[in-house]
Amino acid sequence: MGAASLLRSRHGLLLCLLQLVFIVLYGTLVIYHPDADEAAGTYSGTETAHDAAPHARTYPMFQDVHIMIFIGFGFLMTFLKRYGLSSVSLNFLIAALVLEWAILVNGFFHLHHGLIEVDIISLLSADFTAAAVLISFGVVLGKTSPSQLIVMALFEVPVFVINEVIGRKYLIVSDMGDSMFVHAFGAYFGLAVSFVLYRKDSNSSNAGSNSVSDLFSMIGTLFLWCFWPSFNSALAVSDDQHRGIINTYLSLAASCVVSFAVSALMSKEGKTTMEHVQNATLAGGVAIGTAADMVVRPYGALLVGSIAGAISVLGYEVFTPALAKHCRLHDTCGVHNLHGLPGVLAGMVGAIMAAIASVDQYNASLYTIFPARAPAANTTDWSLATERLGVPAPLGPARSAAAQGGLQMVALVITLVMAVVGGLLTGLVMKLKLWDQLEADDLYSDKRFFVVHDEHAHEATNGHGGDQERDTRM
Amino acid sequence: MGAASLLRSRHGLLLCLLQLVFIVLYGTLVIYHPDADEAAGTYSGTETAHDAAPHARTYPMFQDVHIMIFIGFGFLMTFLKRYGLSSVSLNFLIAALVLEWAILVNGFFHLHHGLIEVDIISLLSADFTAAAVLISFGVVLGKTSPSQLIVMALFEVPVFVINEVIGRKYLIVSDMGDSMFVHAFGAYFGLAVSFVLYRKDSNSSNAGSNSVSDLFSMIGTLFLWCFWPSFNSALAVSDDQHRGIINTYLSLAASCVVSFAVSALMSKEGKTTMEHVQNATLAGGVAIGTAADMVVRPYGALLVGSIAGAISVLGYEVFTPALAKHCRLHDTCGVHNLHGLPGVLAGMVGAIMAAIASVDQYNASLYTIFPARAPAANTTDWSLATERLGVPAPLGPARSAAAQGGLQMVALVITLVMAVVGGLLTGLVMKLKLWDQLEADDLYSDKRFFVVHDEHAHEATNGHGGDQERDTRM
Amino acid sequence: MGAASLLRSRHGLLLCLLQLVFIVLYGTLVIYHPDADEAAGTYSGTETAHDAAPHARTYPMFQDVHIMIFIGFGFLMTFLKRYGLSSVSLNFLIAALVLEWAILVNGFFHLHHGLIEVDIISLLSADFTAAAVLISFGVVLGKTSPSQLIVMALFEVPVFVINEVIGRKYLIVSDMGDSMFVHAFGAYFGLAVSFVLYRKDSNSSNAGSNSVSDLFSMIGTLFLWCFWPSFNSALAVSDDQHRGIINTYLSLAASCVVSFAVSALMSKEGKTTMEHVQNATLAGGVAIGTAADMVVRPYGALLVGSIAGAISVLGYEVFTPALAKHCRLHDTCGVHNLHGLPGVLAGMVGAIMAAIASVDQYNASLYTIFPARAPAANTTDWSLATERLGVPAPLGPARSAAAQGGLQMVALVITLVMAVVGGLLTGLVMKLKLWDQLEADDLYSDKRFFVVHDEHAHEATNGHGGDQERDTRM
Repeated sequence: MGAASLLRSRHGLLLCLLQLVFIVLYGTLVIYHPDADEAAGTYSGTETAHDAAPHARTYPMFQDVHIMIFIGFGFLMTFLKRYGLSSVSLNFLIAALVLEWAILVNGFFHLHHGLIEVDIISLLSADFTAAAVLISFGVVLGKTSPSQLIVMALFEVPVFVINEVIGRKYLIVSDMGDSMFVHAFGAYFGLAVSFVLYRKDSNSSNAGSNSVSDLFSMIGTLFLWCFWPSFNSALAVSDDQHRGIINTYLSLAASCVVSFAVSALMSKEGKTTMEHVQNATLAGGVAIGTAADMVVRPYGALLVGSIAGAISVLGYEVFTPALAKHCRLHDTCGVHNLHGLPGVLAGMVGAIMAAIASVDQYNASLYTIFPARAPAANTTDWSLATERLGVPAPLGPARSAAAQGGLQMVALVITLVMAVVGGLLTGLVMKLKLWDQLEADDLYSDKRFFVVHDEHAHEATNGHGGDQERDTRM
Repeated sequence: MGAASLLRSRHGLLLCLLQLVFIVLYGTLVIYHPDADEAAGTYSGTETAHDAAPHARTYPMFQDVHIMIFIGFGFLMTFLKRYGLSSVSLNFLIAALVLEWAILVNGFFHLHHGLIEVDIISLLSADFTAAAVLISFGVVLGKTSPSQLIVMALFEVPVFVINEVIGRKYLIVSDMGDSMFVHAFGAYFGLAVSFVLYRKDSNSSNAGSNSVSDLFSMIGTLFLWCFWPSFNSALAVSDDQHRGIINTYLSLAASCVVSFAVSALMSKEGKTTMEHVQNATLAGGVAIGTAADMVVRPYGALLVGSIAGAISVLGYEVFTPALAKHCRLHDTCGVHNLHGLPGVLAGMVGAIMAAIASVDQYNASLYTIFPARAPAANTTDWSLATERLGVPAPLGPARSAAAQGGLQMVALVITLVMAVVGGLLTGLVMKLKLWDQLEADDLYSDKRFFVVHDEHAHEATNGHGGDQERDTRM
Repeated sequence: MGAASLLRSRHGLLLCLLQLVFIVLYGTLVIYHPDADEAAGTYSGTETAHDAAPHARTYPMFQDVHIMIFIGFGFLMTFLKRYGLSSVSLNFLIAALVLEWAILVNGFFHLHHGLIEVDIISLLSADFTAAAVLISFGVVLGKTSPSQLIVMALFEVPVFVINEVIGRKYLIVSDMGDSMFVHAFGAYFGLAVSFVLYRKDSNSSNAGSNSVSDLFSMIGTLFLWCFWPSFNSALAVSDDQHRGIINTYLSLAASCVVSFAVSALMSKEGKTTMEHVQNATLAGGVAIGTAADMVVRPYGALLVGSIAGAISVLGYEVFTPALAKHCRLHDTCGVHNLHGLPGVLAGMVGAIMAAIASVDQYNASLYTIFPARAPAANTTDWSLATERLGVPAPLGPARSAAAQGGLQMVALVITLVMAVVGGLLTGLVMKLKLWDQLEADDLYSDKRFFVVHDEHAHEATNGHGGDQERDTRM
């Protein structure tokens, strides 16, 4: 294989190199968590059934999220009629790469004796990190090469992790469904990248869907919709998790119904647009995310989902075309309408709910959801809380409801700033000639990086006719 | 937006109105179940892991059922070559609408202090209710407008709930897999609606499948087939649930094998029809449903599944054409063969098994499956049962096995009557000019209510040629 | 129906006959396991919630495996552009048939008082057995008739079970993910069958994929990829299971990344081949299988997955064409590269890990993974082990680490021999004129055994043109 040939596989070389680095870093830094390592734990002679193992509680929801990442996001993006193979394959590659990378970066911020301990929670957190990167991927879908996407993933993961550590560890804010840290972050990071990579030929005729590609996309939509309650509550405990499931289920139902309603009402002929069915129906899952385990009440969940569905459809009809026309912001999947706006809405709903949360409504859940609200030691509040709970109340900095609400908003703003700045810088790196850049003909087309089997010999010699028949096959 | 434009979106308006009503009703009536509400429950200081929470036991099976409703039913109906987007989208919309509506209606019949408590069981029950409506939808697939389907859903849910309350609460019959209350009910309700809506042009050339639409449909079939054991045993407990899983698994395997066999034997050329693969293979899941948790023995499950598979294929080959020709009954998906006949079979199998159920075979399960068979207080029977079980036996009206069997048949008959009468009345309402009615050209075609992306400009001006090429894309 | 017509449905007749035999055998031999039979178990008055039932622990992972068998393998094989309906349907039929048959054959080798007890583990084991047969099916995909496949399934199951009993019961080797007993066995069995059935016209123009069939195939790939951790650890316990999940997840991520890398590097134009994305990405799941629950360390899992991904792509590019050209071995799905080579690699990794396994690294897991390594009664080793564990250590034949490693290799070799000999003999039976044999035109074509709906009337009269348009629809 000559140097010229190797250059044609820049992402192949890059992936090999990264994989070598990962193996070395894992060899020096990563060990099993004691829960996955008998020799590190304490042996109990009665421990013969796996229901005793902590991972068994999380595993079913972990698998739901896993399917969301690889099937959900993967097929959601297959709506492009000539880019389906690339959509699902690059989603697969980037997600798998991020899993390996995120375990390292997440672990680096949560070291144990200088080492990274891996358990089921690490795997789940890596999947959440992949979600953020895949959301950004949706903005630039069809306009970037594999090597550019790999670079984006490498840079986005550390920014993502740092932002989340700021929010969760230092601001001690609550975002159970990761609507701020994953959805809003991923959307605005991707939009910032797209701004830097802007090209006038983004509105290629290759873009767009057909009936078959729209059906493939619905596979993604429906798995995301069904499993979203797991996404929003996999890491919650007890009653909080139960509430997370109920709230997300109701919010999703509402956003589905309202999306169909607004889609039909916006159309002169009363016709529904598949783009809305595929995306806006999911906005309720994003919008309830931050407050998923809070006491929003069933009607509150319906209300949030309804607003999210309406905003999302309006976004597709009004904002996306306007952003593309006036702001150099081309957004292939309309990520802004599914993850951006509903993510910001989620952050605001979370802040409001936090600002009105009281121990009367939450009882002990107040301290599992907002640990900073736990009373300080040896205070009257602590004694009252202990009396109410019947067991010693947890200790904390005794943050007020208003302060918690305010800090939730601060976390949202920091998330947006980190995402935009990180995305702009990452976009600049992605523009380097070091990475493959797409020609105009390669936009939204599988042909540049995937072997496409053309049955019709004449396609090769007849561009126009071939294109037409290419359509018919997808 | 003018009034004319709004009229073109009747279902859009209807959905908005309903969503507003739902939010108001939820705000006044619906609260979290204590299991999802710390403030309503009793705090336990050790309750830090969600495995202590009751919802965690049900959640994995709930998600299986959720996927069956949205992916299973949704894709099963995409077999129509020009109606795939409508099938999966309207399935999605109607199901989400029913989830919201069913929680209200179910809850209305099980009020707690005048309020509706929502927990994971409520969500699961709403999914079961959606199944009934989607089964009815299958009968009229491609022949009804969105506004007509919304009306059908609104009317079907209360009739469904009342029928189930009669059966479970007043007749105290057992139907673990809901084969009577969901499958038979949904099928005959839909057939009655179809009878009222009958139109001679139902056998449009738009109907029918092609290779790609048949493959999409198989996604639905296989998810339904795999997850059916969850459908049939999600609400069972302990050994009963284990038995429900085994019986359903075996019955499904048998109906798959026998469907293929009979399909090939019925064909002059020994060819299998995809309609049979997509539907009759599932008949075993329906037919074992009522008796899923009863002691039918493994060979009994195989026998029931085998008979169901054979009946179902015969239904497609013989009954469906005959009903369409002679009885004004057009059944797009052949729902009668998958849910109707096997649902009635299930009811009869359940009645027979109930009539021969003894405490020797069931031990304590007799009273969890047939609560009415529990002995009366202070009787010799109660003493004997208590001695046998080693703990105090539950108390009940001491119904005999024969009486239980008879009442199972009564419940089946009531279900069929309620379904047919409810369906006829609902069909009359659906015929009102208030709702959109389909033109002949709109039958089985996505074009009336969905934006279809046509790549070929000449399609617009060349109906015939366009239609042909439209075929090639789906 | 005349005799000629019945002859056209040989597989229909065969299936009917088999189903009758199964019902009789189940009626005489198969009963519920006591865990699914209240009357056979001990009643406990507190046993009202199913979390007390043993099946609830296994059910979520069982369902993951179930989906892998029917959706995973089924859709993976739909990549053939004119054989999609056959692929997914025959996969469905053969798998369902094997479920019924495997419960009998597995049960026959594990009788309880002369009867076969069925529980969730029986169902799961039947699914694993189906996996082996479906792997063999992949080798001969498109080149065999339904009746030939039924014969293959009937013969393969007993050979599979005997080989597994030799390995697990007599050699006491460890193969948690069944990489030797399922993957390597199924692959070499299928290759041996293919060798016997070799025909020169295997490289039909009907073979090959197009964009739509490649997308359908990705549904299979991604479900297999996501749920593979369940396949590799469903039957493990406690920490071992947790480790199995982590190792498989990491190995799969590595094989995905490396497959993409090597695929691009092998291509002159830097293009990725979908065949690699669909298959080689999964090789890490196979390669880590035998050692899934062993202490391979996170970096070890990455290393194994990386090597497997690279070998698998090389296999597709180099070995498969060479085998077809020089060895009369045509392998439709490239099963050798996904299950054969990685299965052998898995066996070797397992042997090496077994040979270096010490009680220091494994603690009590040493004896759950390698029961033969448990010390003999009344020995110093047993006293030391008991002291270390804090409870009485299990008893065993005190096999050494080196002996365990050696026997792991012996089991691998026996597996390969059993598979090849069993496959050769089975292939000879499949060649009998008693079963339908395919004509050259029937290769990789749905038309021989499935009703294919052709929309274009002229296809019937215009073979060549029709074929071209047939392409466009798939």
